Amino acid sequence: MVQEIYLDNSATTQVDGRVVDYIAQVMRESYGNPSSLYDMGAHSQRLLREAAASVAGLIGGRGENLCFTSGGTESNNWAVFGTAHAKRRRGRRIVTTAFEHSSILEPFKRLGEEGFEPVLVSPDSQGNIAPEDILAQVTPDTILVSFMLVNNEVGSVLDYQAIAARVKEIAPHATVHCDAVQAFGKLPIKIEKTDIDLLSMSGHKIHAPKGIGALYIKKGTRIDPLIYGGAQQGGLRPGTESLPLACGMGYAARLRGERLREDYQAVAALRAYTLERLKELPGIVLNSPENAFPYILNLSVEGIRSETMLHHLERERIYVSSASACTKGAASHVLAAMGLPAGRIDSALRLSFNAGITTEDIDRFIGQLRLGMETLARARS
Amino acid sequence: MVQEIYLDNSATTQVDGRVVDYIAQVMRESYGNPSSLYDMGAHSQRLLREAAASVAGLIGGRGENLCFTSGGTESNNWAVFGTAHAKRRRGRRIVTTAFEHSSILEPFKRLGEEGFEPVLVSPDSQGNIAPEDILAQVTPDTILVSFMLVNNEVGSVLDYQAIAARVKEIAPHATVHCDAVQAFGKLPIKIEKTDIDLLSMSGHKIHAPKGIGALYIKKGTRIDPLIYGGAQQGGLRPGTESLPLACGMGYAARLRGERLREDYQAVAALRAYTLERLKELPGIVLNSPENAFPYILNLSVEGIRSETMLHHLERERIYVSSASACTKGAASHVLAAMGLPAGRIDSALRLSFNAGITTEDIDRFIGQLRLGMETLARARS
Repeated sequence: MVQEIYLDNSATTQVDGRVVDYIAQVMRESYGNPSSLYDMGAHSQRLLREAAASVAGLIGGRGENLCFTSGGTESNNWAVFGTAHAKRRRGRRIVTTAFEHSSILEPFKRLGEEGFEPVLVSPDSQGNIAPEDILAQVTPDTILVSFMLVNNEVGSVLDYQAIAARVKEIAPHATVHCDAVQAFGKLPIKIEKTDIDLLSMSGHKIHAPKGIGALYIKKGTRIDPLIYGGAQQGGLRPGTESLPLACGMGYAARLRGERLREDYQAVAALRAYTLERLKELPGIVLNSPENAFPYILNLSVEGIRSETMLHHLERERIYVSSASACTKGAASHVLAAMGLPAGRIDSALRLSFNAGITTEDIDRFIGQLRLGMETLARARS
Repeated sequence: MVQEIYLDNSATTQVDGRVVDYIAQVMRESYGNPSSLYDMGAHSQRLLREAAASVAGLIGGRGENLCFTSGGTESNNWAVFGTAHAKRRRGRRIVTTAFEHSSILEPFKRLGEEGFEPVLVSPDSQGNIAPEDILAQVTPDTILVSFMLVNNEVGSVLDYQAIAARVKEIAPHATVHCDAVQAFGKLPIKIEKTDIDLLSMSGHKIHAPKGIGALYIKKGTRIDPLIYGGAQQGGLRPGTESLPLACGMGYAARLRGERLREDYQAVAALRAYTLERLKELPGIVLNSPENAFPYILNLSVEGIRSETMLHHLERERIYVSSASACTKGAASHVLAAMGLPAGRIDSALRLSFNAGITTEDIDRFIGQLRLGMETLARARS
């Protein structure tokens, strides 16, 4: 059987073998409830604090400001609902972009039904949003500005430091939230040196398992809980903590930290190589902006539906996606927000890399893409 | 070093070694995103469905009605908020008991602030709540009745079938929710033969890891999501599913199903033995009702504070708790709701068993309890 080439690392990643071993060890050896008053509980609490420090460390933050959640979706929901509900007396205006993940857009929609005033800023046709486009929508009574650091489908990178700083000038009471799920562990972030108040992270995009994430809450930020109950995580995020997966995410964060910069360079080189090879194929249009995040490359294959090509590649064990996995086959709202024509949206493919992918892998991908373009187009005519 | 005797199985349990191995295997072999359109995604989706069927199977339900959550706290929050918000046009009255877990009581409090009318039914001084006590509070416009199947601190068992059936007669539009976190996998439940609409479960009480739980949603039950986003789990509980832990919970559920009845008998015998041995010690008062769930035994040691005794036992590697672990040292609201005097609340200990505990373990516990009563009382005088 041919070797698998996994080009869907923005959907999820393979769990690092060392992380698997550590999680199994924690499950076997450290089953005390972190809230229990005896030594077994204290030991679990200590492991949890270490994990929080490791995850926060990867964004230049402190463990005491980090709460573990069940994943990026919960972190995003919490940031949006928790801010809006805590600050409802200060204002009703909440600003985000039209190409956010559904775990931001759906809470915004819901808040609209609750009487808040959601504003969505659209990207241009290149997939870019300039700071001014967002800032133009921020009023002094805006209570929340939430935006992706890196777009998950096309890889646009927002100028988060500039946006955050200027939001604070216009709307001193606004909370700035960044969905950093795609950027986390890949772009160097120093949250305590920015004006970002809340930042969402996910474990399974950095080779930890699915089912764990975190929200960084800068000291002094007002936020309501999303989930109410016991005293865990300062009462902000109750429920017995997911100790094994939190430890796994902590370990994965330490491993990412060691390789963040060199992996970024390796992936940037890989993306450049892929772009060069793609030039050989007529009928390919790029949907990612020029200056995009190197880990993500979105393109359309003229005349061939995304799913048709996806399944052709799958037969050769080459895995790409049509849009965000979370939408499971629905047309991309990101490409629609960019105003792309339907034919380009329906034929879009997202490649998302990791540093373990080789130029030989890309060569095989290009070969199969070319074959698909020839045979699938012929089948249609 | 002496052997550990873990008598705090209602706080959390040791993960079954077979479950650890299976979770590690899923992490290594099945990392596809269940929402991905290619074979790796379909394989993960299949594992998830099998896990849901196993968990639902343990309560006589169908996998298609089960959503995985991050744990019992999320399941309880979802049941309460999701029902109240979905049915707010039908009525405002919501009924529960005063000795629920904080993940029910805190959402009720919050809903009270939102304009709902929460009613809390108190237990008697034995820790019992008769069906009539709850039913007396149910009006035709009641939209939610939520109660524990088994109380987590004293082990009271509520007559859930009778309560659920009669709630439906009085308030046909009411949703009946059971917090079955303690009962799950220990009491035989046939949810499809009851009038319960929603049922909360947790993995880490049945030898699966912390960080996974489920909510059973009987077909046709109206409930809003707690978390909004993608299409996962029918859009009811979005976010990339926690595949490894869901699989672990499914496997743990199958293992529990095989031994549910014989373990119940074994634990009932162990509890009877413990009660016999406790009679030798003057100054012990039982706080659990006579007909309680055998897995939980709550008692007070006259004149010795819970934490003092807990730490005395801990030195001999015998682990018990003072109240629910989730409250971390706060006085028990359950014993307070029963109207017990402060001295009895402050000296309460909860033992919670599993079927692996032996009469020799209990003998050693009794010996150390006796020693504690002698030495700690002397130290005070």
